[in-house]
Amino acid sequence: MTIDAVLQRIDDMLPEALDRLLDLLRIPSISTDPAYKGDCARAADWLVEDLKSLGFDARSAPTPGHPMVVAHGGEGERHILFYGHYDVQPVDPLNLWDRDPFDPEVQDTAKGRVIRGRGSADDKGQLMTFLEACRAWKAVHGALPGRITIFLEGEEESGSPSLVPFMTENADELRSDIALICDTGLFEDDVPAITTMLRGLAKTEFTVHAANRDLHSGMYGGLARNPLHVLAKILGNLHDETGRVTVPGFYDGVKELPDEIRAQWQALAFDHEKFLGDVGLSLPAGEQDRTPLEMIWSRPTAEVNGLWGGYNGAGFKTVLPAEAHAKVSFRLVSEQDPGPVITAFRSWLEAQLPADCRVEWHDEINGSPASVMAITDPAFEQARQALSDEWGRPAAFVGAGGSIPIAGYFKTVLGMDSMLIGFGRDDDNIHSPNEKYDLECFHKGIRSWARVLERIA
Amino acid sequence: MTIDAVLQRIDDMLPEALDRLLDLLRIPSISTDPAYKGDCARAADWLVEDLKSLGFDARSAPTPGHPMVVAHGGEGERHILFYGHYDVQPVDPLNLWDRDPFDPEVQDTAKGRVIRGRGSADDKGQLMTFLEACRAWKAVHGALPGRITIFLEGEEESGSPSLVPFMTENADELRSDIALICDTGLFEDDVPAITTMLRGLAKTEFTVHAANRDLHSGMYGGLARNPLHVLAKILGNLHDETGRVTVPGFYDGVKELPDEIRAQWQALAFDHEKFLGDVGLSLPAGEQDRTPLEMIWSRPTAEVNGLWGGYNGAGFKTVLPAEAHAKVSFRLVSEQDPGPVITAFRSWLEAQLPADCRVEWHDEINGSPASVMAITDPAFEQARQALSDEWGRPAAFVGAGGSIPIAGYFKTVLGMDSMLIGFGRDDDNIHSPNEKYDLECFHKGIRSWARVLERIA
Repeated sequence: MTIDAVLQRIDDMLPEALDRLLDLLRIPSISTDPAYKGDCARAADWLVEDLKSLGFDARSAPTPGHPMVVAHGGEGERHILFYGHYDVQPVDPLNLWDRDPFDPEVQDTAKGRVIRGRGSADDKGQLMTFLEACRAWKAVHGALPGRITIFLEGEEESGSPSLVPFMTENADELRSDIALICDTGLFEDDVPAITTMLRGLAKTEFTVHAANRDLHSGMYGGLARNPLHVLAKILGNLHDETGRVTVPGFYDGVKELPDEIRAQWQALAFDHEKFLGDVGLSLPAGEQDRTPLEMIWSRPTAEVNGLWGGYNGAGFKTVLPAEAHAKVSFRLVSEQDPGPVITAFRSWLEAQLPADCRVEWHDEINGSPASVMAITDPAFEQARQALSDEWGRPAAFVGAGGSIPIAGYFKTVLGMDSMLIGFGRDDDNIHSPNEKYDLECFHKGIRSWARVLERIA
Repeated sequence: MTIDAVLQRIDDMLPEALDRLLDLLRIPSISTDPAYKGDCARAADWLVEDLKSLGFDARSAPTPGHPMVVAHGGEGERHILFYGHYDVQPVDPLNLWDRDPFDPEVQDTAKGRVIRGRGSADDKGQLMTFLEACRAWKAVHGALPGRITIFLEGEEESGSPSLVPFMTENADELRSDIALICDTGLFEDDVPAITTMLRGLAKTEFTVHAANRDLHSGMYGGLARNPLHVLAKILGNLHDETGRVTVPGFYDGVKELPDEIRAQWQALAFDHEKFLGDVGLSLPAGEQDRTPLEMIWSRPTAEVNGLWGGYNGAGFKTVLPAEAHAKVSFRLVSEQDPGPVITAFRSWLEAQLPADCRVEWHDEINGSPASVMAITDPAFEQARQALSDEWGRPAAFVGAGGSIPIAGYFKTVLGMDSMLIGFGRDDDNIHSPNEKYDLECFHKGIRSWARVLERIA
């Protein structure tokens, strides 16, 4: 038998797969709201039952928050862990939905059929693509496609407080050869992608103090130090004229993109004008000698996320404030570590403080390094070919500018790399009213996992 | 008869003068609070009666707000206008007062006897020094010391909404050769001063816009324009390394200090270390080639009074904000005008905006130019000698860093210069709980006006 029989089975059984997803979507598993605690447990139980029906040894494992779903099944040389999350975002503002968020349905739209409902794309629809692939495989082959552990979280939308403790306590049970994570999107509407680079994050908050009280600018202006000027001057120098961060040592450990990845990214023909145009911008504002994709995927950044001081109410107050405040964060890549980056920033800033100013740092150094997958593992190339076969467009190894904490935890807690493969589209309205998942993405997502599992499991 | 008889009379009658002041202080004429409207009128009436007792033709003139007190009396070549205000600041927080703010008394303190009560220094005690000087003069000479118009306001502590309309409507009646204003302080505890330079003020508020919404720094950071960086860079360049404002044309019309004034200021031996030390600072932060007194009295400034954008709540939000905001004001000197200064600032800022940014200006150009008195009028030197005689220390022509709008209005509406002479001390707690006026200041203030009037009226 070839993969064709499995794919045929998937096509034939799509209506039933859809019914199962709609069932799951009807459970309002909003993890951040204690009123839905019972619903979260119900969603976990629903999944446990479904996994059992696939032959998995499955359980709902309690945590101080919402339960984890853990299941094991199948045989194979390579032990694969699959991660998704069954909890969903709140639905406010409810009046912007065109129907009850937990009364999902398949709708015909100008762009095709969509599954409308909270969680359809993030992440119930996506996690079910994997389960449905397993189901079709089992139906055709009589067994799961490989040695598979399923690990489904119920707190992803509320900060994952139980995740690391649970992973640490159950490390031996969860540790696998590779993790598959289905919580990302396609690169473009029909271009599949495997996310192999995730930027890390370091952040710091501080106050620059000058006088011991707010001063009147008539009485003191021109003589006394204004900490807003100090902060503006220092942060105004955070980047040089070419867009490079000026903090000494900031780029230590930053590696150039491998030629293979660079070539793939060029082939993606990323439309940065559209990407920026959608938010009212037109020109890349980062490092001048980098491509737009490098700017958001593979280059580190320093960004002022908040800056404030003095009077910001109605009217005017001619004050020289006693203090000025800022929050600054850094997106990290390659082997940059949060600790040295924040330490370098602090030293750089303190060296520029003029007389009569002092800085107060408000937080411990914290953050997470970048995740860069070792794509030398043949599973990456195998998955890429499988996705290319399904979508008829070459799949790419892409980056993601933001952090996806679970991938970092799999690396740091369990020592394993992750392949992030997902089928969401930019217009899915995740976290917003009228969330949807394209029926095509659900269908081809199931088929994609069958092809991936055939090659790697 | 010489001035000695008048001074003797002042000394002899001080207890009665004090009783009159305490009477006036008992009227809670808080102009900003409508609950005290009747008390404001009562204070005006009290002053009208007192002025009539001195032989003035006095009236309480209604306005849409609180009444003006206007009085005319005496004969002389030089027509002198005297300005003060009978309204007072609110008294909150009441629990920080050691007695009822409107039950004034004379208290013995380690530093001498003080008149404790709201308005004792600002400005009822000060305005009464002038009236008591007139009273003693009249008692000794049988007539007022010259041709005097008294103009007392009841809205100084609440923005003076009626002042300019009233002055404009009654310009012919109020216009005099020179205005005496008693609402300032001594230079040091025993060094009298005549304020001859007041800085003007120009201000502007604006928003720098970039993207059409707040952006996630993971998704867009490194590629999209961050308006906080733009604003920090621009405002960080508002001053060069020597402390000079970098806006082209900003110093147009700024004049160097006359040698005579420079010599006087040097003789004042201003203790800038103490002045700054009191607010926790140690070093002058302004133009490096200027003295501290120049920095606050005779040099223009550009100060950021408020700066804000992005997230400033608890915790962190890795946002690239859509906008960044600032309030910037300028202290003006010599012949600088608010209009050209703001226009130059706007052009300077707009020229530095990078692609995809625009600035929105939130206000009309407004402000007031500096007031620089024509001290060539011999009245200034005469008054200086009179004050030096009374205090035993050479009086100085000083500047004031802040605006005192009335002096500007006398110039622009009535075309006359002002001499600002007052006897307040730094520790008078004006606008604060436990306001006081030193009995010595009240007493020597009365004597000072007698000496000044002898020479100029």
